[in-house]
Amino acid sequence: MVNEQPLRINERRFRENFDTLAQIGSTPEGGVNRLTFSEAHSQARKWFLETARKAGFEGTVDAAANHSAILRSPTAEKILLLGSHLDSVPNGGRFDGALGVLTALEVLHSVKDAKLQLPVHLEAIDFTDEESTHVEFLGSRAFTGQLKSENLQVREGNQAEFKALLESVNLSYAQLFQCGRNPKDYIGYLELHIEQGSRLVDQGIDLGIVSSIVGINFERIIFYGQANHAGTTPMSSRKNAGLGASAFNLKVDTLVKEKFLDCVSNVGNMRFIPGASNVVPERVEVTAEYRAPNEDLGTALKEAVHRIAKAEAERFNLEVEIIPVGQTNSVPMDPKVQEVIRLAADSLGLAVLTLPSGAAHDAQILADFTPAGIVFVPSIGGISHNPKEYTPWEDCINGANVLLNAAAKWAFQAS
Amino acid sequence: MVNEQPLRINERRFRENFDTLAQIGSTPEGGVNRLTFSEAHSQARKWFLETARKAGFEGTVDAAANHSAILRSPTAEKILLLGSHLDSVPNGGRFDGALGVLTALEVLHSVKDAKLQLPVHLEAIDFTDEESTHVEFLGSRAFTGQLKSENLQVREGNQAEFKALLESVNLSYAQLFQCGRNPKDYIGYLELHIEQGSRLVDQGIDLGIVSSIVGINFERIIFYGQANHAGTTPMSSRKNAGLGASAFNLKVDTLVKEKFLDCVSNVGNMRFIPGASNVVPERVEVTAEYRAPNEDLGTALKEAVHRIAKAEAERFNLEVEIIPVGQTNSVPMDPKVQEVIRLAADSLGLAVLTLPSGAAHDAQILADFTPAGIVFVPSIGGISHNPKEYTPWEDCINGANVLLNAAAKWAFQAS
Repeated sequence: MVNEQPLRINERRFRENFDTLAQIGSTPEGGVNRLTFSEAHSQARKWFLETARKAGFEGTVDAAANHSAILRSPTAEKILLLGSHLDSVPNGGRFDGALGVLTALEVLHSVKDAKLQLPVHLEAIDFTDEESTHVEFLGSRAFTGQLKSENLQVREGNQAEFKALLESVNLSYAQLFQCGRNPKDYIGYLELHIEQGSRLVDQGIDLGIVSSIVGINFERIIFYGQANHAGTTPMSSRKNAGLGASAFNLKVDTLVKEKFLDCVSNVGNMRFIPGASNVVPERVEVTAEYRAPNEDLGTALKEAVHRIAKAEAERFNLEVEIIPVGQTNSVPMDPKVQEVIRLAADSLGLAVLTLPSGAAHDAQILADFTPAGIVFVPSIGGISHNPKEYTPWEDCINGANVLLNAAAKWAFQAS
Repeated sequence: MVNEQPLRINERRFRENFDTLAQIGSTPEGGVNRLTFSEAHSQARKWFLETARKAGFEGTVDAAANHSAILRSPTAEKILLLGSHLDSVPNGGRFDGALGVLTALEVLHSVKDAKLQLPVHLEAIDFTDEESTHVEFLGSRAFTGQLKSENLQVREGNQAEFKALLESVNLSYAQLFQCGRNPKDYIGYLELHIEQGSRLVDQGIDLGIVSSIVGINFERIIFYGQANHAGTTPMSSRKNAGLGASAFNLKVDTLVKEKFLDCVSNVGNMRFIPGASNVVPERVEVTAEYRAPNEDLGTALKEAVHRIAKAEAERFNLEVEIIPVGQTNSVPMDPKVQEVIRLAADSLGLAVLTLPSGAAHDAQILADFTPAGIVFVPSIGGISHNPKEYTPWEDCINGANVLLNAAAKWAFQAS
């Protein structure tokens, strides 16, 4: 197939669908408000299903409310899954998730238009609650049979309210755990998503191929000093916990910028105790997280951060305590899927950058179930979760064409 | 008088009075709990008055509940005021304030014992609420006629509750404003107090002579950055308000330690907004104060701090806003009073250090009314407002002897 002309999507249809979807739950600032299970969210999903059925695809909804459009192939046994999510954060943008579902749907349309008989069925899926309004990765966890009752510790509100909410959208708590698919039915999962960072734009590159989804370490680092009168205690005799915490913040930032270029860190909070103007801070509780594209780097970063915490505590005559708060492992994307995306981009003459994803995606849940990969399209200014989120239309078309050609190549490779 | 033998207090009586007073409101940890107008505080004041009257001194209580013991001299017209306060902070120490009242009382005793006819009356005073449990410097402000209704904006509780409290201790709100003394009746004010810092102990010096009481600038410094996804936003593109605030904290600390040796500063709080682990801090509100022994240094320090705030904001691509929250002026102690204390210490062979007071004292209120001065005795470890507050007994005796000789010298100088 190498010298064949690449497939092309129908740009007009793709644009019409994009514009129609963007109207559902649209906000005055030009974004969308489609929180999971809200009226606007349900409308968007209904539109997706109706559009699929009108085009002659199968339209299905499973027990976790995952919505699918399926293009059956008479010769196929297995399914290639494409998709993303139609829910949004509060006052979110038009591209995050929605673009992935629309491109998946457009791939089905384009394969059908081209009368291309693939050796796989194509399923375009809209996963439930990717944005964790109620339950983190509810849809993809249920789909892959990975959902556990501990995943249903609802962030806000209580369990009874959550069950009532499920009932209000015709879902059953018990059935959430019984809709896992069989991995043998799938050859893999491919998602298109906006980068949500600015690396592609900064480097003038058309598309990203995600190498891995970062693992995250969440920690609380507590510096202990001594409360003292800020007027009478000489500066040199103080045990000022605020200085240790401040130095830690700066040193970790420099460390990551200079020595862990593929990682990111964030000190999101520093709580000063007692927090009074005239008392030398006795204790400062630092909230930090570090994201790394693989486990080795994650471990090395964590160790380096701990060395900084200890060194700065010593420098300022403080004690320090490091409390792990949580951890998610990094999830590599399948190398063969990355290669398929690269070949598709090559065939279209598009420049690609292989890069880790700093944000979480349904693909990290899918990766344990079936080979998975992600195509990134550029985000102007790296802005996301914001009405100003924007990807130029040309980049959306490029992304959709890459998804189409990658799907076709993969289908033939796998058969 | 230079070659005369210095006067000496009665160490046994002084110690007995110290031990008796320390029992009133004593805590299991070895400190005292004598909040203004509490039962223990009233008991301590009652004991003071009774002890004075038993010794043949006049015992008076004014409309602001300032308690005085007066040793009249038949040849005198004016009064030399000595004193401090008997109230404590919650769970405070035995020395803060109490030692000043006890040494003042002991000076009256010793002058009487020595049958020394001074050309001034001696008044040993216990000022009301030095520790600001209800109203900052209530007693000394009322005494000097400086009390204003805005000083009575009670810190906790409302105005009606404060009036009810006054009534419960037989005070009248209106009369608080009418008990100001006439400055012409006084030659000056002399206070003995614990240092509450560790400079005397660190340098092995017997006594301190306070040159001034520091002025304080309270400010809120707000660094403005941009909230962003801490996973997808590259480290180098962030506007992290936490880094500006942290660098500010460290730089101000270094500035004061290296270039403003007579000043102190404190960043007591840094409030991170939004304060979430996975969001780059958009805004950090820094609570800072700087204390300087005179106005020139205070102004220079404030300007240097503002330069740091602006430079660090620029370095981290942030905006910064500086909001003045409050200011108290530095109050110089009278040079002649400092000299009198020095001569008294010399006559006793004691080493003195002239130093600013980083903490507030009634003397800063008195200084506008009459020439005022403070003698510091050493604080072990600089600890105060704490049951562990401690001054070796030898230092207490030295301090009382200095107060006695300084009072006598001053009395003769002024007449």
